[in-house]
Amino acid sequence: MKRTTEKNLMVFSGRAHPELAEEVATLLGSGLVPTQAYEFANSEIYVRYEESVRGCDAFVIQSHTTPINEWIMEHLIMVDALKRASAKRITVVLPFYGYARQDKKHRGREPISARLVADLFKTAGADRLITVDLHADQIQGFFDGPVDHLMALPILADYVNEKYGDQPLAVVSPDAGRIKVAERWSARLGGAPLAFIHKTRRTDRPNETVANRVVGQVEGRMCVLVDDMIDTGGTIVKAAEALMDDGAAGVIIAATHALLSGPAVDRLKNCSATEIIVTNTLPLPDDRHFDKLTCLSIAPLVSRAIREVFEDGSVTSMFDGHA
Amino acid sequence: MKRTTEKNLMVFSGRAHPELAEEVATLLGSGLVPTQAYEFANSEIYVRYEESVRGCDAFVIQSHTTPINEWIMEHLIMVDALKRASAKRITVVLPFYGYARQDKKHRGREPISARLVADLFKTAGADRLITVDLHADQIQGFFDGPVDHLMALPILADYVNEKYGDQPLAVVSPDAGRIKVAERWSARLGGAPLAFIHKTRRTDRPNETVANRVVGQVEGRMCVLVDDMIDTGGTIVKAAEALMDDGAAGVIIAATHALLSGPAVDRLKNCSATEIIVTNTLPLPDDRHFDKLTCLSIAPLVSRAIREVFEDGSVTSMFDGHA
Amino acid sequence: MKRTTEKNLMVFSGRAHPELAEEVATLLGSGLVPTQAYEFANSEIYVRYEESVRGCDAFVIQSHTTPINEWIMEHLIMVDALKRASAKRITVVLPFYGYARQDKKHRGREPISARLVADLFKTAGADRLITVDLHADQIQGFFDGPVDHLMALPILADYVNEKYGDQPLAVVSPDAGRIKVAERWSARLGGAPLAFIHKTRRTDRPNETVANRVVGQVEGRMCVLVDDMIDTGGTIVKAAEALMDDGAAGVIIAATHALLSGPAVDRLKNCSATEIIVTNTLPLPDDRHFDKLTCLSIAPLVSRAIREVFEDGSVTSMFDGHA
Amino acid sequence: MKRTTEKNLMVFSGRAHPELAEEVATLLGSGLVPTQAYEFANSEIYVRYEESVRGCDAFVIQSHTTPINEWIMEHLIMVDALKRASAKRITVVLPFYGYARQDKKHRGREPISARLVADLFKTAGADRLITVDLHADQIQGFFDGPVDHLMALPILADYVNEKYGDQPLAVVSPDAGRIKVAERWSARLGGAPLAFIHKTRRTDRPNETVANRVVGQVEGRMCVLVDDMIDTGGTIVKAAEALMDDGAAGVIIAATHALLSGPAVDRLKNCSATEIIVTNTLPLPDDRHFDKLTCLSIAPLVSRAIREVFEDGSVTSMFDGHA
Amino acid sequence: MKRTTEKNLMVFSGRAHPELAEEVATLLGSGLVPTQAYEFANSEIYVRYEESVRGCDAFVIQSHTTPINEWIMEHLIMVDALKRASAKRITVVLPFYGYARQDKKHRGREPISARLVADLFKTAGADRLITVDLHADQIQGFFDGPVDHLMALPILADYVNEKYGDQPLAVVSPDAGRIKVAERWSARLGGAPLAFIHKTRRTDRPNETVANRVVGQVEGRMCVLVDDMIDTGGTIVKAAEALMDDGAAGVIIAATHALLSGPAVDRLKNCSATEIIVTNTLPLPDDRHFDKLTCLSIAPLVSRAIREVFEDGSVTSMFDGHA
Amino acid sequence: MKRTTEKNLMVFSGRAHPELAEEVATLLGSGLVPTQAYEFANSEIYVRYEESVRGCDAFVIQSHTTPINEWIMEHLIMVDALKRASAKRITVVLPFYGYARQDKKHRGREPISARLVADLFKTAGADRLITVDLHADQIQGFFDGPVDHLMALPILADYVNEKYGDQPLAVVSPDAGRIKVAERWSARLGGAPLAFIHKTRRTDRPNETVANRVVGQVEGRMCVLVDDMIDTGGTIVKAAEALMDDGAAGVIIAATHALLSGPAVDRLKNCSATEIIVTNTLPLPDDRHFDKLTCLSIAPLVSRAIREVFEDGSVTSMFDGHA
Repeated sequence: MKRTTEKNLMVFSGRAHPELAEEVATLLGSGLVPTQAYEFANSEIYVRYEESVRGCDAFVIQSHTTPINEWIMEHLIMVDALKRASAKRITVVLPFYGYARQDKKHRGREPISARLVADLFKTAGADRLITVDLHADQIQGFFDGPVDHLMALPILADYVNEKYGDQPLAVVSPDAGRIKVAERWSARLGGAPLAFIHKTRRTDRPNETVANRVVGQVEGRMCVLVDDMIDTGGTIVKAAEALMDDGAAGVIIAATHALLSGPAVDRLKNCSATEIIVTNTLPLPDDRHFDKLTCLSIAPLVSRAIREVFEDGSVTSMFDGHA
Repeated sequence: MKRTTEKNLMVFSGRAHPELAEEVATLLGSGLVPTQAYEFANSEIYVRYEESVRGCDAFVIQSHTTPINEWIMEHLIMVDALKRASAKRITVVLPFYGYARQDKKHRGREPISARLVADLFKTAGADRLITVDLHADQIQGFFDGPVDHLMALPILADYVNEKYGDQPLAVVSPDAGRIKVAERWSARLGGAPLAFIHKTRRTDRPNETVANRVVGQVEGRMCVLVDDMIDTGGTIVKAAEALMDDGAAGVIIAATHALLSGPAVDRLKNCSATEIIVTNTLPLPDDRHFDKLTCLSIAPLVSRAIREVFEDGSVTSMFDGHA
Repeated sequence: MKRTTEKNLMVFSGRAHPELAEEVATLLGSGLVPTQAYEFANSEIYVRYEESVRGCDAFVIQSHTTPINEWIMEHLIMVDALKRASAKRITVVLPFYGYARQDKKHRGREPISARLVADLFKTAGADRLITVDLHADQIQGFFDGPVDHLMALPILADYVNEKYGDQPLAVVSPDAGRIKVAERWSARLGGAPLAFIHKTRRTDRPNETVANRVVGQVEGRMCVLVDDMIDTGGTIVKAAEALMDDGAAGVIIAATHALLSGPAVDRLKNCSATEIIVTNTLPLPDDRHFDKLTCLSIAPLVSRAIREVFEDGSVTSMFDGHA
Repeated sequence: MKRTTEKNLMVFSGRAHPELAEEVATLLGSGLVPTQAYEFANSEIYVRYEESVRGCDAFVIQSHTTPINEWIMEHLIMVDALKRASAKRITVVLPFYGYARQDKKHRGREPISARLVADLFKTAGADRLITVDLHADQIQGFFDGPVDHLMALPILADYVNEKYGDQPLAVVSPDAGRIKVAERWSARLGGAPLAFIHKTRRTDRPNETVANRVVGQVEGRMCVLVDDMIDTGGTIVKAAEALMDDGAAGVIIAATHALLSGPAVDRLKNCSATEIIVTNTLPLPDDRHFDKLTCLSIAPLVSRAIREVFEDGSVTSMFDGHA
Repeated sequence: MKRTTEKNLMVFSGRAHPELAEEVATLLGSGLVPTQAYEFANSEIYVRYEESVRGCDAFVIQSHTTPINEWIMEHLIMVDALKRASAKRITVVLPFYGYARQDKKHRGREPISARLVADLFKTAGADRLITVDLHADQIQGFFDGPVDHLMALPILADYVNEKYGDQPLAVVSPDAGRIKVAERWSARLGGAPLAFIHKTRRTDRPNETVANRVVGQVEGRMCVLVDDMIDTGGTIVKAAEALMDDGAAGVIIAATHALLSGPAVDRLKNCSATEIIVTNTLPLPDDRHFDKLTCLSIAPLVSRAIREVFEDGSVTSMFDGHA
Repeated sequence: MKRTTEKNLMVFSGRAHPELAEEVATLLGSGLVPTQAYEFANSEIYVRYEESVRGCDAFVIQSHTTPINEWIMEHLIMVDALKRASAKRITVVLPFYGYARQDKKHRGREPISARLVADLFKTAGADRLITVDLHADQIQGFFDGPVDHLMALPILADYVNEKYGDQPLAVVSPDAGRIKVAERWSARLGGAPLAFIHKTRRTDRPNETVANRVVGQVEGRMCVLVDDMIDTGGTIVKAAEALMDDGAAGVIIAATHALLSGPAVDRLKNCSATEIIVTNTLPLPDDRHFDKLTCLSIAPLVSRAIREVFEDGSVTSMFDGHA
């Protein structure tokens, strides 16, 4: 009794950011698999798929946005249900990878939650991950299996280049630890000079900074402040002010992940940057939109990666040889 | 270079139900290990222990109450931090085990979240579990390691016996699937007759019932309605009404886990039961207390079990041969 | 060098119940793979497949009948041989799952043998399980992978309905712990009333009962005594007598698994039940057949499930949405 | 809360060969832990320990004798019960390791059951093994953990030396594949010359031989025919005849494991060997004793090994540098 | 979104023995995947594939020749890179399996490096192994997955048969522990008589021997000295001399693996053997060739095995029922 | 049979850097365990411990120096031998962690060898790691268990402070990606200003740089060029020149790991730096010493960490709250 084997692509979405998942599924032409998902009265999550998923090549999309633990657990439960319902291969798609900043012990007796998250998905049944702009590239190595690490840099930098490319630019890192990212921007922007902000973080509360000094030449240049994410915006806004104080011609901010937590929107609205450019790896509720904010879609990137994975194509080739 | 080996008991508490953990630690005479725990702006949890935990015999207490995914993730992160900080043995103490009701696939393409939770703790680094009154005894078998399964029955039943033992009693299960628990109560209450409520649950929304019929003789008897947990209270309150309709002399309700979600307090306040007896495996905020509610402490049971585990004593003997 | 991938279904049978495996293979149109299997002089089992199994989709059928440890070991050895001979996927088919009753610690210091059995098959190389009417649904969660849990209820209940549907029926559970099964029967039999037998088991010798009392109304009704299995028949025969004593119009017994150990045949022959209806998940040797016994074949159910699994169809749909 | 850690040695015995376990326990001065073990009517095994085993250093003794699958399953179930009852360390003691002869694929599509057995014990919870005279030394490498491999050679050879050491000896292997063992005997017996029997085994039925030819000089010598085990005795008895035909002065047979299956006793009784020397790694029922059979106890060796393991001594030193 | 699944065979080669890999790839018609591989200044190895390998059926060939640890690490790193680049299945091809001689603890406190090597490849991501003439067949059982164990015997023996088959032959094992191999040769060479060399190895330095005595009749016969490998040649050359001393008509040496370490070439050149026949499982640099040495290619065997594995054919059938 | 448990510290050394291990063992007062270790003729490594190690708390020290694959394999084999000889706990001490620079995929189809190394040690039997100044802190998260990550910064910085603290200093990172390390130096050196060298690396050959530009103010300052390691010295020497070109008062170089591969010694000797300060995490053969080189011992740090681990003390406290 023989049969030719067929692959069946199915895309699943958690409830954290359905708009992105729908956009991805539409680009793939596959639609989302109808899924029941809700909370019981005591906040336990219930999930059930309304179609047979047996033997499918499953891609499960969830953005790890606030409330992040809720959405991670839902993501894990979705993977468990797929495993037990006989999906053939389960690819977890995390446009934003939760807990990525806890990628090492900054001090003794801390967890390494980014590794824990990788292990939890492995345990639930994930065969592979697709994610975008990890806080540290090393997180790829936390997962015991293939990780396709996508980069929003081409999308963001091409936008910047087109709009600001005729001005003298500088690429600035808001943090000594992230100049590597700025170097990649610099290369993409024709070798624009680099600078960074030197500051001391408090070790016990990582997102409160103390002092800011610009290292590098920014005078008279339009500064592109780049980072992987904007959380409360405190660091990046202070960096923008420091650049203006140092004689920058202007500041634009570019980041992949728009967490925009707490005071972020107010800070960004009122800061001296002229434009803030982000992607939709995380949902942006209406009350978080504002005039200076430009949100580019990550869906074409994610959907193309899914297609390459499904068709045994090359994800590496999407970035011209950058992993 | 030789040394005599020493064991060091350390008790840790998550933020879900610190009162219970403190009561347990006080009974043990050990105190809680000082722990930093808070959320970042995007709701990621941060945990750090403020004392060395190297080589300790760690007991990590967290009640899986609402918001349950938050507290489960905190629990997992605490275990990860202990593992990486070289705790010698990690015992996870779950007075209430989250997702215990999703212990099987009721329908196709559902997860088995109770197994997933067991595996997540194993992955994070748990060596063993201590828990109270699992929704199904089989959940012990979901964890790959020792599980000490404690029973609140003696605490609850002795209270009932003392207060109502002079009346003719009946033990009633609100659900055909849980008569086994009622049988244990019956044995403990001197062989009181058994009854149960026959109802049909909707398969797609497990906590909405359809019809209630008393099976067994309850007329003229004080009925002890027993269950492992009270969530929204719908089932048990309807059961109480059915018993009164059938001529019961009165109804008291006894359950280990007081979830008391959503409308539970209102329903219980206004129902015909004269007393509702629960334990504090889950926190009971002030607005969930009401006159008819009696809350007995589970801390003596949990602290004694921890002591037996630490001292290589016997947990089985605490229950005279019941596991 | 490219090739289109093909799947190749191969069905294997242990020596415990070859008739069932042959019936299944015939229904699938695939035949059984020729297999050498015998014991060495010291009772070690030897197995070898006489055809190449490389790359096949293997289904290995064995009924865990007496001598059960022999057949479980043969089953494990068959899986090991398949794994080492490069089968692509190995599905273990257990029409009766051995040790299912030891699914929890009834008392301290007991094993959970049903979990152990799941782990042993995983270790040997099983990718997935197909089984029928587990003693407890939670056993699905003991296996770390997909489990297709089939139900004989439609086969049994349709037979009963056709033959006895014109009489007033009651569905009776012989044991408080198994009323859930009776509830499903009741639903299938048009809402027939429920009853159960209340008895106390001795904790140290689980299959000796002490007292029997009917809870529920059975007078004048044809009682369908339902259970998942009949082992020595003691419990169910006493239940039948209790029902007759309470005025039942008659008793029929229905169970999926006919272990019929030791005195079972004599007890059933001589009891007041008019018909005993079982399936052939376990072999029924000639000396265990008797007039009142009706044995329905489970092979159509098992073969259809195998076909759905092989063809990436839906097993869930076989039961109209019941898992 | 600190305590000095204590170790507690506990010895457990399955039902296959309680005499050996009792002898071992007596030599250790520890006694056997009282254990309930019996079969249910359908031949499932039930085990329960009657004392707390929490935190103990457990040694679980079972001889894998006929019916071997029964005793292996009991052994596994005992380990599972110990793991779940919180034994600190579990050492599996297998005086005879079942399925050791299936230590490789002799032909395609065979299992490697000896590896499977190692994995099954690991899965059940075994931390380490103690065993005697494995059929192949490589089986040590099948277990993922420490294996203490004991040798009966000193016990057997010293007996032979004392009784026959004044005659000209030859050491003979009944099989080309086992001359390595004979070499060790030769060294222990002062460099006695070696010989072996050259025969062709049928590949499909490994224990039927075809032809026997003595390779080596045995004329006029008392031949010590050595092997790890005697199963049906066919091979070794034919070897004895071939030696006598070649002019040997006499033959004695020495082997560690006395399986003595089927026709073995008759064959050995009637063969030309003057003495058959074995140990009690396997039980020898009364009807398997006969005049020429000498059975030496392995208990002193096993008990000393257990003591060394418990006290962190050296097992290697027991054999003067032989592993 | 459905697609027919395709398999894509890709062959990879480490740098240890590229000639063999190229010969294999040429026979398969597939070519080798272009691969960058070199050492950094501190001798760390860097590997990268220059083509997409996503979804491929990968066969990674490396001969474990000197410097063996270098090539094993390169082999492991190649497997890791394939796993992370989403190869579908990874088959590790080891024409010579490194550390195969450390397959057991010869003495206490030794490693079992052959098991370690199996586990390292499993950890790196190997799904299966293909190897040739393991030092002990039991090593198949060290790997947790399928192992295709190829035999060079037909290639070597057919060559011997053709060239020397008209003379009276004897098959001789240079070592008591390897007569089993000689038995297989004997069967293939029409039942030629067997002999072996009895010697005592020093236990602390396994490759220095002490004494050599021929056991068996070799007078007037052309002796085929057979072994799995020739390392320094000491053992086998002494065996050849012993055979000539005992009146052999001549000696030829046949072995699968030509390690030819240190003094091997000089010893073999100058010994009394007339021909040394080996295969190219290991590279033979020009300075290790000499007149009496015949090197047969193993590539046809390996490439056919790869083809059978890729096409779900039968490797067993390549050897007419020998595993 | 009870015993008080004792711990026994044993220190083991591979052959890569015995001087360091001896220094550590001397500081601990324990001595090194006598160990046999050598290569067979074909370069396979053989290891055996000459004392019983049963039950010990083992610390196995090996520096991953050139030939690095040799020493990593020896390290793994040593761990395997300890595991099989029943060591109680195995701590792998890697003063320099091999392959740390391959901590992510810089491009597609590369391995993540640093993760592979962590997994290989786990597989061999490592329970925990102690290491010094990882190339990226995230590598801690590659190991599934506790990692004690030591920092040489206090040793190096205190030396610099004492010798150069009276001059105006600047801390310079030779690479944009490692400014984080420079920030820690700056904090330790009283807030000295930061600078870094902006260069473009070739992506295909990571250690050839293209251009160097100083970002930050260094004029008139004594520049402390800091890095975790010096391999060929190319990057750091060019950085020194760039600093002098930019008007630095002088340059000193400080790094933990002195790989000093290939041309490093010549480059450093002849560069404009006045002193090069390193530690002995790696062996420095005599021909790699030169006048300007200062080598500080890491042994006090490592031995103190081992003592804290053995005595269940705190490693975190050694660094005042830095992990």
